[in-house]
Amino acid sequence: MYSFRNDYSEGAHPNILQRLVETNLVQQSGYGEDEYSVAAKEMLKQKLGNPAAAVFFISGGTQSNLIVISSLLKVHEAVISAKTGHIFSHETGAIEATGHRVITVDTKEGKLQAADLKDVLAAYSMRPHVVKPRMVYISNSTEIGTIYSKAELTELRDFCLANNLLLYMDGARMGHALTADSNDLTLTDIGQLTDVCYIGGTKNGALIGEAVVFNNPQLGADFDYVLKQKGALLAKGRLLGIQFLELFKDDLYFTLARKANMLAMKIAKAVQEQGYTFLTPATSNQLFPILPKTLISELSKEYQFYEWEAIDAEHSAVRIITSWATEESVVDAFIAAIRQHK
Amino acid sequence: MYSFRNDYSEGAHPNILQRLVETNLVQQSGYGEDEYSVAAKEMLKQKLGNPAAAVFFISGGTQSNLIVISSLLKVHEAVISAKTGHIFSHETGAIEATGHRVITVDTKEGKLQAADLKDVLAAYSMRPHVVKPRMVYISNSTEIGTIYSKAELTELRDFCLANNLLLYMDGARMGHALTADSNDLTLTDIGQLTDVCYIGGTKNGALIGEAVVFNNPQLGADFDYVLKQKGALLAKGRLLGIQFLELFKDDLYFTLARKANMLAMKIAKAVQEQGYTFLTPATSNQLFPILPKTLISELSKEYQFYEWEAIDAEHSAVRIITSWATEESVVDAFIAAIRQHK
Amino acid sequence: MYSFRNDYSEGAHPNILQRLVETNLVQQSGYGEDEYSVAAKEMLKQKLGNPAAAVFFISGGTQSNLIVISSLLKVHEAVISAKTGHIFSHETGAIEATGHRVITVDTKEGKLQAADLKDVLAAYSMRPHVVKPRMVYISNSTEIGTIYSKAELTELRDFCLANNLLLYMDGARMGHALTADSNDLTLTDIGQLTDVCYIGGTKNGALIGEAVVFNNPQLGADFDYVLKQKGALLAKGRLLGIQFLELFKDDLYFTLARKANMLAMKIAKAVQEQGYTFLTPATSNQLFPILPKTLISELSKEYQFYEWEAIDAEHSAVRIITSWATEESVVDAFIAAIRQHK
Amino acid sequence: MYSFRNDYSEGAHPNILQRLVETNLVQQSGYGEDEYSVAAKEMLKQKLGNPAAAVFFISGGTQSNLIVISSLLKVHEAVISAKTGHIFSHETGAIEATGHRVITVDTKEGKLQAADLKDVLAAYSMRPHVVKPRMVYISNSTEIGTIYSKAELTELRDFCLANNLLLYMDGARMGHALTADSNDLTLTDIGQLTDVCYIGGTKNGALIGEAVVFNNPQLGADFDYVLKQKGALLAKGRLLGIQFLELFKDDLYFTLARKANMLAMKIAKAVQEQGYTFLTPATSNQLFPILPKTLISELSKEYQFYEWEAIDAEHSAVRIITSWATEESVVDAFIAAIRQHK
Repeated sequence: MYSFRNDYSEGAHPNILQRLVETNLVQQSGYGEDEYSVAAKEMLKQKLGNPAAAVFFISGGTQSNLIVISSLLKVHEAVISAKTGHIFSHETGAIEATGHRVITVDTKEGKLQAADLKDVLAAYSMRPHVVKPRMVYISNSTEIGTIYSKAELTELRDFCLANNLLLYMDGARMGHALTADSNDLTLTDIGQLTDVCYIGGTKNGALIGEAVVFNNPQLGADFDYVLKQKGALLAKGRLLGIQFLELFKDDLYFTLARKANMLAMKIAKAVQEQGYTFLTPATSNQLFPILPKTLISELSKEYQFYEWEAIDAEHSAVRIITSWATEESVVDAFIAAIRQHK
Repeated sequence: MYSFRNDYSEGAHPNILQRLVETNLVQQSGYGEDEYSVAAKEMLKQKLGNPAAAVFFISGGTQSNLIVISSLLKVHEAVISAKTGHIFSHETGAIEATGHRVITVDTKEGKLQAADLKDVLAAYSMRPHVVKPRMVYISNSTEIGTIYSKAELTELRDFCLANNLLLYMDGARMGHALTADSNDLTLTDIGQLTDVCYIGGTKNGALIGEAVVFNNPQLGADFDYVLKQKGALLAKGRLLGIQFLELFKDDLYFTLARKANMLAMKIAKAVQEQGYTFLTPATSNQLFPILPKTLISELSKEYQFYEWEAIDAEHSAVRIITSWATEESVVDAFIAAIRQHK
Repeated sequence: MYSFRNDYSEGAHPNILQRLVETNLVQQSGYGEDEYSVAAKEMLKQKLGNPAAAVFFISGGTQSNLIVISSLLKVHEAVISAKTGHIFSHETGAIEATGHRVITVDTKEGKLQAADLKDVLAAYSMRPHVVKPRMVYISNSTEIGTIYSKAELTELRDFCLANNLLLYMDGARMGHALTADSNDLTLTDIGQLTDVCYIGGTKNGALIGEAVVFNNPQLGADFDYVLKQKGALLAKGRLLGIQFLELFKDDLYFTLARKANMLAMKIAKAVQEQGYTFLTPATSNQLFPILPKTLISELSKEYQFYEWEAIDAEHSAVRIITSWATEESVVDAFIAAIRQHK
Repeated sequence: MYSFRNDYSEGAHPNILQRLVETNLVQQSGYGEDEYSVAAKEMLKQKLGNPAAAVFFISGGTQSNLIVISSLLKVHEAVISAKTGHIFSHETGAIEATGHRVITVDTKEGKLQAADLKDVLAAYSMRPHVVKPRMVYISNSTEIGTIYSKAELTELRDFCLANNLLLYMDGARMGHALTADSNDLTLTDIGQLTDVCYIGGTKNGALIGEAVVFNNPQLGADFDYVLKQKGALLAKGRLLGIQFLELFKDDLYFTLARKANMLAMKIAKAVQEQGYTFLTPATSNQLFPILPKTLISELSKEYQFYEWEAIDAEHSAVRIITSWATEESVVDAFIAAIRQHK
């Protein structure tokens, strides 16, 4: 059985393990003061074109989200998210557990628009009987594979600026977003158009690790305290620093994401050629093709993937995910299996 | 400069890195459902002599403490700790941040005794105007290097049973405790005498990782939810499982801790032979010798360690820590430098 | 201007003030240990037919909700509510501020049904990536004036029992519910069909005050601690005890509610006779007639009420509330004004 | 039996009840928008000499403390208090329940000094492994009857200003403090020397009610949200407004406190004349005389008071509290009983 269930089925890119082995016995300061973490933060600030940014490394996405959000909101403030947003759908109430409501919006493609935010502000106007919306959470790429265009992100940013809202981008799959065929955003754009974001490592070649970036460093002035308080400050911070050093050396991060996208597009093309459609646009490394149940049943004999949603008596949408580690030969065999079905 | 500042200055034991490399591209389920984690949990239950125990892997100690404690206490309940306890002294209010008071006790050697607990219960008797003490937090070895004897732990356990208190042991350095010369506890004893404990990997050979053990599995029945909610459930749980598999294969964990203790005792012997005393008994891999400031000044030219506490105009206590990675030749040179001083 | 905006525009029923004056200088124990509170609790247990119930007095509804819910849920557990439920719509995220998600359900009449709960359990099945639904919150009467029948409540209760869910009834307007024409529930039924409820005083004759009742006293065993911790334990608890003593003497509580309902029904009848409809069924003391904007405009010259929701270009729904203190002559004048409009 | 156990054994000053009766059926806006609350806030700002201050009414002291503190601290920040401070000793962990550590200081007379704060800052310097001290909590009068002088308060204020600390005064017994014989502070001084304070009504003539004052209104800009979120916004806010209107009309508030103090001083004088000493200086309406157990035993036959602390085999300190409602004739009888003892 080969798994297309997610992009964290394998370990790390070999370069990372190699570097861990090479540096293993060099003594380093603890708690992120090691030289690798320091160098990795510098490198990221350069790539973002923002030398003043404040960068912190965190083990995982849920942890990043809950620490960023709880460090920025006051007790009566709330964060707005698409209903499909990871903080609402798959983080076991992590944000509420820090005391804040996640205000949700139904969306078509998992993306928030300025009009959605306007509606939320109207619905939450009956002060003081309602929470105060203060932050906007978006994912890029989204949990259903779509991405934000520069125009869309700029519109959101403008609305946020005009309405005293902070804009936070969850970039668990930022690599896949920025290397998608239809993407027109750069890392520098992200640095300029969001207040805070995180650049995800776990789903793109790292063992663990996300880089939280405060593009406005004032917002992160006391973040080190919160990092420690929530249990996220690793004694051996070198583990995170080394990974980001390797991922951003020679833009390996983008090379890996591009490969994942390319393999996904190969599958998407085959799906389309067979006349099947998609639940959400096939854009990055997460695909949601709507397939006949008979095909799903056949594919399931050799491949693992999620059955996402029943469509009708004979069709379901499935979720297929590729990654930096996906083998092209397996993708080709998978495509062949799709084509053989009739 | 060579560092005796802590036991997390290096990476992981080479066996661990080797195993990570070997298994790197094997596809595994995420979120701790991988075969390594499953096998490591089984192995730990065997070692603890408690097949019914519930085991969970977590990245670090602060995270383990806050998740265990917040998952077991109701909103009005509190945990009792020595004032030197890590949850009170060095975790940025992590426990209070989950809503619970840490009730502190002044102690001589960082260890709680039944008499201390009795005093706390008396001081917190004015229901409902005070919190309800419900859990006892102890560290073994303690933050100042001392360890619990079987008699001491048994007395605590009996008091807890008689007073509806849960007993939780922070084993960040459990390896060093259980391999200290004066120790008479076994891992099985810990399993029988505590309700919950964690077995620390980070400070004894792992890159990251602690194993939380609910010796009473009922207490951990819903722990998976809380693990996820607090951001501690790693997508690539294999990273934790593989490390514990290696650490407990052929009892490497205890071999490493024994080495750290042995090197510490070598230093302690030299310190004593020079006529110096200790702030706390020299028992495990953390030493707190009281040295002349002139000697401290000389040693500081080549070695890093913490100046812990000023004693008088001419003496200070310092903290010297050894680990599995400490080089014996450096220890010998350090001892020679102590002996040369007059 | 006369206000139909809410049922808390006036002070307390005169009997209450009289009793406060009479008992004012009698020395009493503090913190709810006074003889009036003790007697009032006994009286309520009798009325509920449950001598084992645990009763506590609290100043207001939001406070009651947040203390009850936060005292009963573990950190990873959530409460289910209709989207119109007060805890979701008008309490400034009070429940989330204690760390718990409010899972919402869209409903037609503000009431939850077993089928809704079943859907929620299905949607929240992906353990441990989602919160665990553990409590069901219902209001009776609801925030939009409707009430639960005995059959409906029994069905909910059965579903809860079968699915390990606690059933909590917010009775801010329980008096109005139990005295509505179409009601078939008694206070004893409420005591048997819910795990916890509160009987609201503020909106039915008290200055402040709600009586929280744990029909299963085990659930309230430590409630006194939480009451104090959340700032709800009044030093002069007599203020609450005296009010409930008066409200339940000779069933004044139900007499007052019945009057409010009767006046509302009088208005409802006139509204219907004029051919207007209602947004939600006219059942108790909260009415939501859909009126021509021209009529609304005229009525607004002499009466205050909320414009609730725009219906079309020419009609809006308004909210009209009557209470124990509403003057029947004003109601008659209001009805006359409705009838005169054409 | 007559009780000297506390200053909340009776109801309210009769003027308050009278006014409640007079205004009872006047319709008013809810949630503190009533005309009495508006007028009472204006009156208080005048008395404080700070027209820009932001004033809010809250039912009780624990509630005031937890809402003020949780609204002003970020998640990693802590509040400093004397160990005898009410927030640490008698509020069931209310502050920790909102996520913040209470850093305690041992004091002689329940009062904090700048030197204490300096020590705390030194002890909490190991960023980011410790919480960040951000607020100083003081009570005036203190929980053991002592009061702050203008010089002491000014010194604290200066230290706070120089060290980015907020100064918050719990004035549960502010009336008793400001009317004590040795007092040299005015309400205007309090307004200028603290960032936030509350003026306590419950222990000085009100049924319930404390007035929270943000002397720096910026700090209270969003306080209304938090008030509602924590369940403190009364639907019938008139209950609080009317009480403060009456209490500050013709300075009744100070007249009542002065009477309580005068009666306490009468007792204190008799105690001294008999040669007994005090645990803490006899300054305001809380006395802690150290009496022979034989005398305590005799007095206990007719009077209620707390046995506070055992002193030696034959003596204990007791707590005697007088209030606005204490009868002078009873005080005289009590004094006579003290004098008769030999």
